[in-house]
Amino acid sequence: MVDDSELALLTDLYQLTMTQAYWKEAYDQRATFSLFFRKLPPQRRFMLACGQQHAAALVNELRFGEAALTKLAETGLFETGFLDWLRDWRFEGDIHTLPEGTPVFPNEPLLEVDAPIAHAQLLESLLMNLVQLETVLASKAVRLVIAAQGHPVVDFGMRRMHGIDAAVRGVRAYRNAGLAGTSNVLGGLRHGLAINGTMAHSYVLAHDDEYEAFRLFARHYPNTTLLVDTHDTLEGVRKVVELMREEPDIRVQAIRLDSGDLGDLAKQARQLLDSAGHSEVRIIASSGLDEDAINALLEDGAPIDAFGVGTQMGVSADAPVIDLSYKLVAYAGEPRVKHSTGKTNLPCAKQVYRRYAEDGGYLGDVIALRDEALADSAERGEPLLRPLVVAGKLDADEMARADSAKERVAQALKQLPADALALDDGESGYSVRLSPELERLRSES
Amino acid sequence: MVDDSELALLTDLYQLTMTQAYWKEAYDQRATFSLFFRKLPPQRRFMLACGQQHAAALVNELRFGEAALTKLAETGLFETGFLDWLRDWRFEGDIHTLPEGTPVFPNEPLLEVDAPIAHAQLLESLLMNLVQLETVLASKAVRLVIAAQGHPVVDFGMRRMHGIDAAVRGVRAYRNAGLAGTSNVLGGLRHGLAINGTMAHSYVLAHDDEYEAFRLFARHYPNTTLLVDTHDTLEGVRKVVELMREEPDIRVQAIRLDSGDLGDLAKQARQLLDSAGHSEVRIIASSGLDEDAINALLEDGAPIDAFGVGTQMGVSADAPVIDLSYKLVAYAGEPRVKHSTGKTNLPCAKQVYRRYAEDGGYLGDVIALRDEALADSAERGEPLLRPLVVAGKLDADEMARADSAKERVAQALKQLPADALALDDGESGYSVRLSPELERLRSES
Repeated sequence: MVDDSELALLTDLYQLTMTQAYWKEAYDQRATFSLFFRKLPPQRRFMLACGQQHAAALVNELRFGEAALTKLAETGLFETGFLDWLRDWRFEGDIHTLPEGTPVFPNEPLLEVDAPIAHAQLLESLLMNLVQLETVLASKAVRLVIAAQGHPVVDFGMRRMHGIDAAVRGVRAYRNAGLAGTSNVLGGLRHGLAINGTMAHSYVLAHDDEYEAFRLFARHYPNTTLLVDTHDTLEGVRKVVELMREEPDIRVQAIRLDSGDLGDLAKQARQLLDSAGHSEVRIIASSGLDEDAINALLEDGAPIDAFGVGTQMGVSADAPVIDLSYKLVAYAGEPRVKHSTGKTNLPCAKQVYRRYAEDGGYLGDVIALRDEALADSAERGEPLLRPLVVAGKLDADEMARADSAKERVAQALKQLPADALALDDGESGYSVRLSPELERLRSES
Repeated sequence: MVDDSELALLTDLYQLTMTQAYWKEAYDQRATFSLFFRKLPPQRRFMLACGQQHAAALVNELRFGEAALTKLAETGLFETGFLDWLRDWRFEGDIHTLPEGTPVFPNEPLLEVDAPIAHAQLLESLLMNLVQLETVLASKAVRLVIAAQGHPVVDFGMRRMHGIDAAVRGVRAYRNAGLAGTSNVLGGLRHGLAINGTMAHSYVLAHDDEYEAFRLFARHYPNTTLLVDTHDTLEGVRKVVELMREEPDIRVQAIRLDSGDLGDLAKQARQLLDSAGHSEVRIIASSGLDEDAINALLEDGAPIDAFGVGTQMGVSADAPVIDLSYKLVAYAGEPRVKHSTGKTNLPCAKQVYRRYAEDGGYLGDVIALRDEALADSAERGEPLLRPLVVAGKLDADEMARADSAKERVAQALKQLPADALALDDGESGYSVRLSPELERLRSES
């Protein structure tokens, strides 16, 4: 476990050595850093920017506690004067962010930090770690939501996620992406997503008899979900039907299928349930599902009411990482650009404008300089980046916008063009242009 | 952040509902659960079992604190009597584990829990989450170590990892796998891996002049590494050479290449350094490296001394998840087996025997019943699973074996057959057989 007093040490060593160098050189002009990605992973047509408000609020509170300072002193790399400076350090810059849940495209900043350069540098590694986690997980989870065509999708993936923080914070990303529930108790309670549970094979196996296991569990938990595939799926369904006939006061909300040909078994199970007069019992499917499997099941007309997903979603298995960059784009009021092969950045503090059709659909984006007056009215649209932290002070109203990320995503799914919502590998063709001033600066630099 | 008092809630809801059902049914016979995987990910020929001792020690200390119990009460799912039982609950079972750093193959238990069934159930989700993280990351990292053929590999991936816990705990896995260092300050300090730092492009860009940035940084940090590719890599190398000529008291330990054709640039940089009489300056390469890229660079004779790796290793991008199972294999002394299609388990408490050739090389493994007397002496070998927790008490000597995981891995790399060490996709052909008794039980069940 990492406690708050040590969190400031969760950074790359060079952030601290560079910061000490700036301190020694009295380099304290304001810098602007942009957090963005250069290209989408192959299986993504957009990313959902998530975690950036959450992360910005957290890093705004970073402090170097005594335990952390002692450990730094022991490395022998840092001077006492610098450690004293770190002890008193409070972030005193500005952070602009996209509201969480905003669809974001290559080269668009998810956030920008404007601060004396050492301040901006000290936030980098942790900010990137946190924003990547939620952005990657939300961007995967929303694909499952799209594939499920309105059927509830429930997270069963806690055991597959990368450690404790991913398992807890990940539920926040899932909630924002539109999942209906999670099996993860702490994650669900902390981030306001319904907690759901069924039963495991071990419960059935621990009883001598599957029927008896069903009977006991359904008595303990009225309206529960019974897992029917421990031995033979359709036999399991018949036992559920028999249980409801033998004990008419028992109500079963759903059965869960967790192995075999889910589409075929769902059809047969539906028939068994319906012919026994139990059309109210729903069918939940799980077992290595991803968006392609869900899509194929629904295309094939499988009568599945809800999907439990874990392994593939828990680590965003097909795209577990996004190559976020946090790059210096201005220093002391001057644009800064790195020229290394294939890794050019857009200079200066920026703004992203999103343009909408009359029905609310996205027409495309323009990336402009933050202080640029766009001459052409066709370029104007909604400015997406907003000040969240100003001179080290968090704007509570702006922070509250993170709470509506879920609604923002639901809305975005109605506004994104169909090509961006397609789940297969390919280009969305979504238009992201540079403003005239940004284009001019980039070509000059 | 998750504090200790809430950690017991980091579980799947059904663990708690099943446990309450067992409590109500007075089901308290001893159960054995096995933690294993059924098949290797496509790009892995073995996995390094890591985290299981660490995780077992942690779950052995799990407690339901008042904050957790209050939250559970608020769900309305749990009876007061059961919450009282949870308040007093202490794990009172046994846990056998492989020592960390042991190469492990399909169907071999990484650990087994023997306990009253509710006790074993309460550990499941967290145990799986923690063991998977370290096992997946160590199993990826060791491939980079193999590819680097003795050259140091340094972790630069903190910003790409999935959240805070992965970033800290992951360094433990990297240390065990044989990495030489990490950029991650907290991870390195906590888990005893050297912390390394170079410099970022932002430092160069913040200065008006690359030469001046090099001069200042090398003055602040004697024997540092200078990043030479911010503008033009070979121009950057020439500036480093010029700096060492102009200021002979400045020592530069290494240059870092972070973009472009690394092999070609390394050769040219080496030539520039050598012809200036600086054969002591090392070359470090980074930029999206994985084991294949490292292998290709070394095959091509690139004069690279050390590798910095991040994105691909940080999430084990080619195999970010392993489908661990935690299955009930015995209850009340009776074998238990699930029959669902394609998901059969090996029944009963087990032992894994590893057989060695005279030179120490692995000959193959036998999975047997834990209490089975192997008749054929050829079947015998080293029993790998060892008791770590007995009746809820951690064996400190056995726990200390986790500290030698790094040495165990280094040794294993000399003992694994060449086919298991190959990095390309394919089968290792490593022999894992079942003992006669286990084979008989499986065929009967």
